[in-house]
Amino acid sequence: MNAQQTDALVVFQPSGRKGRFPVGTPLLDAARELGVYVESVCGGRGICGKCQVSVAEGHFAKFNIESRENALSEKGFKEQRYDEKRGLADGHRLSCSATLQGDVVIEIPDAFKVAGQTIRKDADTIGMVRQPAVRLYYVEVEKPDMHNPLGDAERLIKAIRERFDLGEISVAHHLKRDLQKLLRKANWEVTVAIHNPDQRPEIVAIFPGYSENLSGLAVDIGSTTIAAHLTDLMSGEILASAGVANPQIRFGEDLMSRVSYVMMNDNGQENLTKAVVDAVNGLVDQLLELAGKDRESLLDAVFVANPVMHHLFLGWDPTEIGQAPFALVQSDAVHCSAADIGLNMPQGASVYLLPLIAGHVGADAAAVLLAQHPETAPHPTLVVDVGTNAEIALWDGRQLLAASSPTGPAFEGAETSCGQRAAPGAIERIRIDRETLKCRYKIIGTEEWSDHPEFAEKSKETGVTGICGSGIIEIIGEMLLAGILSQDGIIRSPQNEVEEAVLKPNGRTWSFIVNEGTPHIEVTQNDVRAIQLAKAALYAGVKLLMQKSGITEVGEIRLAGAFGSYINPAYAMLLGLVPDCDVDKVKAVGNAAGQGALIALLDVNARERIEETVRQVTKVETALEASFQDLFVAAMGLPNSQDPFVRTRAHFEMQDFVPAESTNEGGRPRRRGRNRSR
Amino acid sequence: MNAQQTDALVVFQPSGRKGRFPVGTPLLDAARELGVYVESVCGGRGICGKCQVSVAEGHFAKFNIESRENALSEKGFKEQRYDEKRGLADGHRLSCSATLQGDVVIEIPDAFKVAGQTIRKDADTIGMVRQPAVRLYYVEVEKPDMHNPLGDAERLIKAIRERFDLGEISVAHHLKRDLQKLLRKANWEVTVAIHNPDQRPEIVAIFPGYSENLSGLAVDIGSTTIAAHLTDLMSGEILASAGVANPQIRFGEDLMSRVSYVMMNDNGQENLTKAVVDAVNGLVDQLLELAGKDRESLLDAVFVANPVMHHLFLGWDPTEIGQAPFALVQSDAVHCSAADIGLNMPQGASVYLLPLIAGHVGADAAAVLLAQHPETAPHPTLVVDVGTNAEIALWDGRQLLAASSPTGPAFEGAETSCGQRAAPGAIERIRIDRETLKCRYKIIGTEEWSDHPEFAEKSKETGVTGICGSGIIEIIGEMLLAGILSQDGIIRSPQNEVEEAVLKPNGRTWSFIVNEGTPHIEVTQNDVRAIQLAKAALYAGVKLLMQKSGITEVGEIRLAGAFGSYINPAYAMLLGLVPDCDVDKVKAVGNAAGQGALIALLDVNARERIEETVRQVTKVETALEASFQDLFVAAMGLPNSQDPFVRTRAHFEMQDFVPAESTNEGGRPRRRGRNRSR
Repeated sequence: MNAQQTDALVVFQPSGRKGRFPVGTPLLDAARELGVYVESVCGGRGICGKCQVSVAEGHFAKFNIESRENALSEKGFKEQRYDEKRGLADGHRLSCSATLQGDVVIEIPDAFKVAGQTIRKDADTIGMVRQPAVRLYYVEVEKPDMHNPLGDAERLIKAIRERFDLGEISVAHHLKRDLQKLLRKANWEVTVAIHNPDQRPEIVAIFPGYSENLSGLAVDIGSTTIAAHLTDLMSGEILASAGVANPQIRFGEDLMSRVSYVMMNDNGQENLTKAVVDAVNGLVDQLLELAGKDRESLLDAVFVANPVMHHLFLGWDPTEIGQAPFALVQSDAVHCSAADIGLNMPQGASVYLLPLIAGHVGADAAAVLLAQHPETAPHPTLVVDVGTNAEIALWDGRQLLAASSPTGPAFEGAETSCGQRAAPGAIERIRIDRETLKCRYKIIGTEEWSDHPEFAEKSKETGVTGICGSGIIEIIGEMLLAGILSQDGIIRSPQNEVEEAVLKPNGRTWSFIVNEGTPHIEVTQNDVRAIQLAKAALYAGVKLLMQKSGITEVGEIRLAGAFGSYINPAYAMLLGLVPDCDVDKVKAVGNAAGQGALIALLDVNARERIEETVRQVTKVETALEASFQDLFVAAMGLPNSQDPFVRTRAHFEMQDFVPAESTNEGGRPRRRGRNRSR
Repeated sequence: MNAQQTDALVVFQPSGRKGRFPVGTPLLDAARELGVYVESVCGGRGICGKCQVSVAEGHFAKFNIESRENALSEKGFKEQRYDEKRGLADGHRLSCSATLQGDVVIEIPDAFKVAGQTIRKDADTIGMVRQPAVRLYYVEVEKPDMHNPLGDAERLIKAIRERFDLGEISVAHHLKRDLQKLLRKANWEVTVAIHNPDQRPEIVAIFPGYSENLSGLAVDIGSTTIAAHLTDLMSGEILASAGVANPQIRFGEDLMSRVSYVMMNDNGQENLTKAVVDAVNGLVDQLLELAGKDRESLLDAVFVANPVMHHLFLGWDPTEIGQAPFALVQSDAVHCSAADIGLNMPQGASVYLLPLIAGHVGADAAAVLLAQHPETAPHPTLVVDVGTNAEIALWDGRQLLAASSPTGPAFEGAETSCGQRAAPGAIERIRIDRETLKCRYKIIGTEEWSDHPEFAEKSKETGVTGICGSGIIEIIGEMLLAGILSQDGIIRSPQNEVEEAVLKPNGRTWSFIVNEGTPHIEVTQNDVRAIQLAKAALYAGVKLLMQKSGITEVGEIRLAGAFGSYINPAYAMLLGLVPDCDVDKVKAVGNAAGQGALIALLDVNARERIEETVRQVTKVETALEASFQDLFVAAMGLPNSQDPFVRTRAHFEMQDFVPAESTNEGGRPRRRGRNRSR
């Protein structure tokens, strides 16, 4: 450091951006100049403490800097006051107050890292970038002056622009009505909420004094369930989460029956729209109550939904989606106001819906892509979100392909005699003893398996009520492994006493008895057929994308959604839901659609990113593809009539399954697989 | 012209912009490339005919061009079809169809000149540039395609951007609901109305097929009267005009009494707002009816008003304007939607209010500046708009200064015993016989003067009802000239029989009898005082601006507003309303505020222009200026106790007026002026 130095070199970590500034330059100004994002609500008044940084001490040969704390000015009045009032961690400085005195390397702490990563260790938002679409700015407004007759709105804008680097700012019309009273009551000190500060800044709310009162909503509107998170947009923390059944169910179980309802009934669309908007408003009330948060803080919301839910939520007629060519009203992301939809949020609150990918591939699928970004994977990667509809995305190393496939609700426990939704009492895991052919199983809500001595006692409260989706996948896989189900999905007739004890006639077919007595639970031939149809639709969709991209296998499979989280990956492959793959490369990734909604809520740049990704996606309409039918028929087989599933067979140590031809003869497989996966 | 020429030089007149283009280039494309505005609704389909141009034939030495009709391609199918259907004037070509074949000079006809000057010879919009904030675009939209699943909104936007040079286009949220039905019903051919196409294009309305259905509203909300024009935004023509009394009058005659009403009554502001919004809605209904125009065509509106009217119209509390420091909610121009205000216009209709200049200088004053643009005058120019408030603008050759002065309603016929509004039966011109001191006068609605033999018969229907503002100015001037009024405004006591016949006692003062019998009309001492106070306020305001700018006289005076249109300029100077000036340099400029509103309605660029002008204006708050009181006192004299008014005296051939000192002695002026101005 030169005694006569008038410029100092500053390097910001972790970005490594650097530049020379006159000695005495506040660090915040230097950061701004270099395009390093350092958050600030108070605009350098030493109130908000969001702009904290620390000196990285040591010798940095790369920059030729001997970086020491004394390269910054001593703590001034503002920093000392902040330290006394709110506490400043050791070594931390307010970058608005600390000025450059010499060459230095500055670390932007984790919690305030570029674009503000979240501070709280919340399971769902940890690691997400936080740069919301609505941000707060504290300002002190000049009082009116007859000699310079600017309006209150202009003086407010002037105060903001003097402190913050924003473009032309507008004031939402509804705020102007009470602006004068509010400014005077707040003694000209207010915190304004600005929507879209980076592009078209608009003041959408004004709070008296200094405030950090800002929250947002991330909602996944599913055909069956609506799930919502209330998030603190200042910390990134999830304040409360809640879900509710989609009340549209009373108008139709699945999407197409709801579209039919719209087509067949006057005010059909209005009824469905009102049902979902009312439900969301109920969730908003519930979440604000749970979190103890003011409604006026709730200034942004992100929604994801499949195309039909999306249109109905917005009050748009989904009829065109119900028929070829499946035309959407709008495929691009929707930006509108909460008032446009009738949401019980403040008047200035904005709403964002992720783009739709295609007529049957929705904003929920886009959200999965945003959360999973398979296009950054090093190998061909398949992402599958299984619900009533399966959303399928395939990254083949060059392009991202997407499609949806109508699996129907069988995977969710519907359409099968023994099936039920995942709820306490439902069988979620199951094994068949290879010798006795008796089942032992585990139900939701009880830790012990059914062959444990304490099972009866511990499961008393819920009882055993049925089989949920993941249980059905396992039982059919086990039946296949136990040799009582053929490769083409026929339950064999019993050949001996052991089999006679578990295989019972059911009209012209046979049923497999899972639980004798109360309740009586069995798997019928129809149940197997329902699962075969569902999984064939899913697999045919996946194969279609693989054919389109010319690849024959994938390096990784990610299973999104609630079903994907509970399913046993080995059994999913055993049944041929997804392509053959190393079992340890098949992963559940949780509620990726909900995660995507949260990401878009917390980071406005993520919205542009997913919009661009969706524009680049190769959309495949499965119904239009000539080969879909053949792929579907082949996929009816277990795991598949055409594809060998070598890895899956190896995993289950099987040489062969019961061939389709053998069912009439009732012969057992030459060698039974032993289940390794528990 | 070279036979092997592959490029051709084209010069567009009157702008003179020129450039070289490949032979075969459509003229419209060349014009766009050169930034020459040629209107087009159909985007080059040969439907709208708005893009007509003609060849300027002859030798243009300046450009070295021998310009001939054969420098353009022959008429093709589109042009021939247009000619057959709608007729193409001789020599006119459609610039979208005619292509360059050689060097040529192109004339953009008057009606379609740069930025589209108005076609129709309407008295009020003639010569105004027409480039409205909302414009129409005809497009043919691609049908949906499953293989490229763009939404209807995206395909609509794509169709527009393929034909027209517009940026990122958004679709107003309310249109999306019925977008799909509308496009299908219109067989994918629609005309969209786009708001703000040059900056942030937003589709605000969609009409089936080809349409030129676009209208706009220009409204001047005065304290007393609301006047509105319905204008065809495609032709510039005024379709209908109407006015209505401002119903707020029942809450208070003048501005301050309305502000008091707001302060003293719960819902006071809401009542006043509702009154004016209802009145405007009534005018909208009336205008659409009168013009036989669809409400859905009405997509833009411009309003001008003084600050109190402006705030009340927008639903803003004007209390702060009623007291120092006269803080406005917003001084800048207001952009909002008709729905924000509760106007009965289509949902996509936009509203623009010109900027306010200061706490007491409103958007009406800004509109006067826009219409008059005194800042382009070659000499110091004064613009005065006299109403209940006088708006004063002074261009001193370097800067534009503005102020308002509270003249009160005396000039409008209120506050005087004989006064009335300008209406049939009101005396508007008057002369006093210098010998008999009898009056002869002219009333509104009757051509003949009162001394004409047929006057009694012709005026029977209206009768003589009172004196309107311009009449009061003249009668007081005549009293001064006739020597019965002193320079300080005292009506003298009668000195002889002739005077006794017209000067009658009225308490401790004297009144001048204008009309004996029915109706009895007289000018009282209080009447003279009321006019003195009003004119002193106006003159003191004007003088203040002149002092501020350091000039002692103006080269030109423009009198705006209804009052300014009827006032006799010589008498206005005789009474000292405005500074001394050559009489022929004092001009009435009509309803400049209304004209300004029309200009801003027809030309979106005029809005930016006036916003910039207003930012540059030096605002003077008369109430704050120490010298105002002295100037006011001096201005109580007739014409003025300090300023000599040399030109005015010369005009009236007077050496002197009755001096203030002489009133008690009752002496007549040494020589009476003879009125030259009739």
